[in-house]
Amino acid sequence: MKSWLDKINWNEDSLVPVIVQENGTKQILMHAWMSRDSLEKTYKSGKATYWSRSRQNLWVKGESSGHYQFVESIQTDCDYDALLITVKQEGGIACHTGRYHCFFTKLIDNNWIETEKILKKPTDIYDK
Amino acid sequence: MKSWLDKINWNEDSLVPVIVQENGTKQILMHAWMSRDSLEKTYKSGKATYWSRSRQNLWVKGESSGHYQFVESIQTDCDYDALLITVKQEGGIACHTGRYHCFFTKLIDNNWIETEKILKKPTDIYDK
Repeated sequence: MKSWLDKINWNEDSLVPVIVQENGTKQILMHAWMSRDSLEKTYKSGKATYWSRSRQNLWVKGESSGHYQFVESIQTDCDYDALLITVKQEGGIACHTGRYHCFFTKLIDNNWIETEKILKKPTDIYDK
Repeated sequence: MKSWLDKINWNEDSLVPVIVQENGTKQILMHAWMSRDSLEKTYKSGKATYWSRSRQNLWVKGESSGHYQFVESIQTDCDYDALLITVKQEGGIACHTGRYHCFFTKLIDNNWIETEKILKKPTDIYDK
């Protein structure tokens, strides 16, 4: 029997891009990637689980930081080649730099300007 | 002199993924891709301009439908490998299927279910 996972148009690396949006505020927290296994695990466990392209492994977001993302909904687009998930962000910090979200760099007058403050030092997030 | 465009970590196809969010409502409208040229054109013209991977060409969103996206802000993430743009969506229709946005398919009980109504038939959008 065909699985809902078969409907996704996985890219040449067998991944799909994922937009991660915070429930309620609708703030975009991250842009990440999922493999088939990570999407299935995300759906079954309710915890956002990504594919790390740099480390080449499954990665339960929050596993080392405590900043889990509890998934409220999973949507796909008209081409089934991108996902949008809405999450509850544990600890209010989604970015590994210690910021609320990853999109803290804004294009202003031909320059990239950082606009969000660091809420917690990365060394304090990961040294536990 | 280095350009702000050089800071982006373009992928192996020289593209970057783009999250398109509506200003005000914060609704995610689309997930798209930009080349260096399309990002530069987007910034200079103020109209969202993407790279069509299927047609392999630059594509000013709204050129054939009238549903332009007027860009309010451009942000990048901590790795400079994804963009988030906020836009004013002309005509209230972002999806080529005639829906408000592209993420109208939701995962419910192991099935993908369409949840958004068609506001305008695609033939009525593109036959002008």
